[in-house]
Amino acid sequence: MTSEAITVLGLGNLGRALAETFQRADHPVTVWNRSAAKAEGLAATVASTAAGAVAASELVVVAVLDHQAAQQVLSGVDVCGRALVNLTSGTPDDARELARWAAANGAEYLHGAVYAVPQTIGTDASAIIYSGSSAVHERWQKQLALLGKVTFLGVDAGRASGYDVAILSGMYGLLGGFLHAAALARANGIKAGELTPKLLSWLTDLQPALTTFAEEIDGESYSGGESSLAMNQSGLATLIRAAGAQGVPFAALDSLKALVDQQVDAGRGEESLARAVESLGVASQRFAG
Amino acid sequence: MTSEAITVLGLGNLGRALAETFQRADHPVTVWNRSAAKAEGLAATVASTAAGAVAASELVVVAVLDHQAAQQVLSGVDVCGRALVNLTSGTPDDARELARWAAANGAEYLHGAVYAVPQTIGTDASAIIYSGSSAVHERWQKQLALLGKVTFLGVDAGRASGYDVAILSGMYGLLGGFLHAAALARANGIKAGELTPKLLSWLTDLQPALTTFAEEIDGESYSGGESSLAMNQSGLATLIRAAGAQGVPFAALDSLKALVDQQVDAGRGEESLARAVESLGVASQRFAG
Repeated sequence: MTSEAITVLGLGNLGRALAETFQRADHPVTVWNRSAAKAEGLAATVASTAAGAVAASELVVVAVLDHQAAQQVLSGVDVCGRALVNLTSGTPDDARELARWAAANGAEYLHGAVYAVPQTIGTDASAIIYSGSSAVHERWQKQLALLGKVTFLGVDAGRASGYDVAILSGMYGLLGGFLHAAALARANGIKAGELTPKLLSWLTDLQPALTTFAEEIDGESYSGGESSLAMNQSGLATLIRAAGAQGVPFAALDSLKALVDQQVDAGRGEESLARAVESLGVASQRFAG
Repeated sequence: MTSEAITVLGLGNLGRALAETFQRADHPVTVWNRSAAKAEGLAATVASTAAGAVAASELVVVAVLDHQAAQQVLSGVDVCGRALVNLTSGTPDDARELARWAAANGAEYLHGAVYAVPQTIGTDASAIIYSGSSAVHERWQKQLALLGKVTFLGVDAGRASGYDVAILSGMYGLLGGFLHAAALARANGIKAGELTPKLLSWLTDLQPALTTFAEEIDGESYSGGESSLAMNQSGLATLIRAAGAQGVPFAALDSLKALVDQQVDAGRGEESLARAVESLGVASQRFAG
């Protein structure tokens, strides 16, 4: 029995890792990249056009720079009957837009968000969350599993990206906080390497608090809790003053304090810090799906 | 042998927990609070003035609202021969200022930053980092250990606060990122309770990267690494666009991107994200101590 042909569009670090992983599992792979030079060293069929690459396989995996690039690559290509798996980063609405386009052109669309660096694609350290076509998820389960742990989040093509942007925002919050922490430490003659284990240990201790905050947010009920908005308002004010005094102000703290201030100004100072999520203006934007 | 007398200035949640902990260990405790009503239910001697409370014990523990309150409380009080342990939150410079004032007035000064909620003071879940007078740290070791795990960071009275503001900034980065993540999830019909375990697991996976970043920062050498400034600039741009499109913009992301942009604009795009710490303007503010 011959293994299924697979096409990979885009040969950046991610696309190349995908193509190599499929090849190692003996799938005949066709690749296309804007600049064909990127295919060097790959034992794959190199198509001269994206349309030609798409014609070669039922399963087409897209990994290009961004949503715009994905749109450009697919534009005008006959995708009828194809299973499109798009691993290109973008917003939830980007994914939904491509899903509609695929449906209108006779293709099935599955969107994925990758939790791995290219080097770990195809290993246990790689995880990909998907949403969109359950038909694609079922039919190509085995091939997708080659890339990393598969989680299917449902038929809304935007859902995986929704998770992704949320997780990325949490990650960038931590990264920004870490960088600022390192700068504050340095301003006090403390090495980042000395600070980091203490910081990580404190952040680990915080995890149960985040779980409690999540419950409060889902219940939209913020009356309990030990960490009040008023207390955090005062803590943030001290911290902002300290960072300024040390010559390392960081406006991210002011952005967070603005969320807290809004709730305190509304008379909610004694309620949980988690209520600051309501300052992010989602109440009127609640998901309609 | 009679246990040493101890004075506690300030009976907020923290001060009260301190007084109770010392009492449980059979220390005669004298307390003072701006509003004496807060002493209700405490089996302590209630002094009518801060000066009277300070006169009652060699060890004086201060836990008031903020640095200004600490200054006001101590102003004009005879502290000669006293061991002042200040657990009031403030900046490194606040602590150094009080240390100088104490020295000028014949007192020894030790500053502490508390990692505990008042409810856990006196339990294994409490930790306090100290810096300043090593004489106070040695002489009152046993009493300080009653409150929580003691770590002594050296004779610079500002060092414990330096750690503290750094750790708090890291914590608030994570908290801000978490709140924004929850808002983004909600905008996509994803429960915070569903997101949080995935977010925490991803943040745990990030810890080795932070350790690497810390090494790069201490060595001021950013040439290695898999997470380049250029890559993160593009990721942040996508994320900011996604958050805006979903009606939940959060300026903290723009603040972080500004740090990254500054390094990319300086031609450092291929270097590690950790270099963004240099955008925080500490290079010229390096600790002189």
